[in-house]
Amino acid sequence: MDIEDLATRIEAGERRALARAITLVESGRADHRADATALLERLKDRPAQALRIGLSGTPGVGKSTFIEAFGLMLTGQGLRVAVLAVDPSSARSGGSILGDKTRMEHLSRDPNAFIRPSPAQSQLGGVARRTREAIDLCEAAGFHVVLVETVGVGQSETMVAEMADLFLLLLAPGGGDELQGVKRGIMEIADILLVNKADGDLRATATRTCADYAGALRLLRKRAQDPQGFPKAMTVSAVEHAGLDKAWSEMQALADWRREAGHFAARRADQARFWFEAEVREGLLARLKREPVRGAMATLGRQVAEGAITPTAAAEELLIQYLQLGLADRAPDDPQSPSPKA
Amino acid sequence: MDIEDLATRIEAGERRALARAITLVESGRADHRADATALLERLKDRPAQALRIGLSGTPGVGKSTFIEAFGLMLTGQGLRVAVLAVDPSSARSGGSILGDKTRMEHLSRDPNAFIRPSPAQSQLGGVARRTREAIDLCEAAGFHVVLVETVGVGQSETMVAEMADLFLLLLAPGGGDELQGVKRGIMEIADILLVNKADGDLRATATRTCADYAGALRLLRKRAQDPQGFPKAMTVSAVEHAGLDKAWSEMQALADWRREAGHFAARRADQARFWFEAEVREGLLARLKREPVRGAMATLGRQVAEGAITPTAAAEELLIQYLQLGLADRAPDDPQSPSPKA
Repeated sequence: MDIEDLATRIEAGERRALARAITLVESGRADHRADATALLERLKDRPAQALRIGLSGTPGVGKSTFIEAFGLMLTGQGLRVAVLAVDPSSARSGGSILGDKTRMEHLSRDPNAFIRPSPAQSQLGGVARRTREAIDLCEAAGFHVVLVETVGVGQSETMVAEMADLFLLLLAPGGGDELQGVKRGIMEIADILLVNKADGDLRATATRTCADYAGALRLLRKRAQDPQGFPKAMTVSAVEHAGLDKAWSEMQALADWRREAGHFAARRADQARFWFEAEVREGLLARLKREPVRGAMATLGRQVAEGAITPTAAAEELLIQYLQLGLADRAPDDPQSPSPKA
Repeated sequence: MDIEDLATRIEAGERRALARAITLVESGRADHRADATALLERLKDRPAQALRIGLSGTPGVGKSTFIEAFGLMLTGQGLRVAVLAVDPSSARSGGSILGDKTRMEHLSRDPNAFIRPSPAQSQLGGVARRTREAIDLCEAAGFHVVLVETVGVGQSETMVAEMADLFLLLLAPGGGDELQGVKRGIMEIADILLVNKADGDLRATATRTCADYAGALRLLRKRAQDPQGFPKAMTVSAVEHAGLDKAWSEMQALADWRREAGHFAARRADQARFWFEAEVREGLLARLKREPVRGAMATLGRQVAEGAITPTAAAEELLIQYLQLGLADRAPDDPQSPSPKA
């Protein structure tokens, strides 16, 4: 693969090149991984910085309608918008390509928008790396806004928040029960809560719900990287396109404040370090499942089960073998790995 | 340290040697770890097999009173009983030595009983290895029953169940609310539910609660390693020593059935393999926090934070350094490690 050519075309903003590069980072094949790493290394010294926005909300809250309306508003202002989806639950359905294209019908046809569905991956760890790398690729392709959408399930919000500059939580209008349904942890990572469906019969309920959330937010501990008034709650109506410009102004104001205070760059640095450490841990454990370490593990596991060796002594033995086999294992792969500067 | 001498004294059932060996396995010092591993290797080919009983129950349910009464009943039958406590929450109080001795006043003075309080450890992983190894030591010292007690908090039950031949759950008499408070996961690992305090004013409530739990147990999926009627719910009264003999008969019946069906040995083999794999994972990750890998991680982490290298490329670089440094790191330690046959 010609990494340099692909990189140049991504930097020129070619959507097909971007799509191909994302397919590359989504691949689990060793040679693809090596190409992906080389590509990302090549692209890392880009000047432009996109605003990375994480967005979460439970099913039915109107995420697709919101993204469609919000995305079209931004492209209408001349901004280029990328939408990435993270849905750990989509592993079963094998991705949601059709779903993502049809549920954001107008945005998906907009030349200034790029929509990428959730990859069909079962492990959140794998999803994390692929999403993080896809964000980097979108940023390298010159997108001004990268919106990373996730469903309100399990640990995916925390993961997306660790990749985003801002985190939005989309909520439905409703009473006290719904309020309690939002986990405290999610409240604590959100910068802006958007109560959607503030239209028609639900307008009054949405306003009241928004006030309830605003009250709840005031009970949370103040974060150092927040200016006065954040995190905040607002109402929007995705179907009536109401409040979207106001929400965007608030996002920009928050991002600007953080940039000036140095929190923006510091957060990205912390995130990079966080993912580096996560990758290291995952890489160490992934090697246990690969030959030849896997074979050594199975052999020692049998001896442990038979009582021929204690678990602790066997683990120490395996660690030595891991180190030796790991080094030997690496050698044949090296010639295939392209140099980052190739 | 004279491992052979210590091993011989443990095999002779010397309680002071056993206590000293448990202190050894609880130590985090590298030379102590090496001695502990050698000691356990030396002792692994023992003929006797204790019945390992896990016991959990929320605070206030009467665990101490139950263990005191149950333990004294067993020692009264000529059996030797060891009691180990696992309490992840005791990390703050720095162990509970006085507590364990005073709350089982008579049992702690019984020459056929050995009570070991929870070590003051903060990490459940470390507690797991130490507890597992302490069980092995008690078994090598010829104890007939090793009772491992844990509080009904977090993951400690699952951990103890992975070390035990049988798992008991001690419950308080009470209504439907209390019934729901018992997590489904805990119900599923319990072999026998004991509703305590079936005495005085609470006798009728305990009987009703027991029937409720019995009903709930029937809804659980049948496990292959269980004979007809298990898991089961029973009432006991620790203060009146009522139902303890019946509970002990049931434990023995279940253990006998499993021994004859081959499940007993198979479960121990599975557990040994489980802990071997857990130790491997923990050992790999623990090395990240030790020099010289820790230094390499800090250096690369800084470069990642500065944007000089991507998290993925840095993680790959660290993995190579981990393997190389890990092998180099090991060398100076080896001369200190006593041979298991020394």
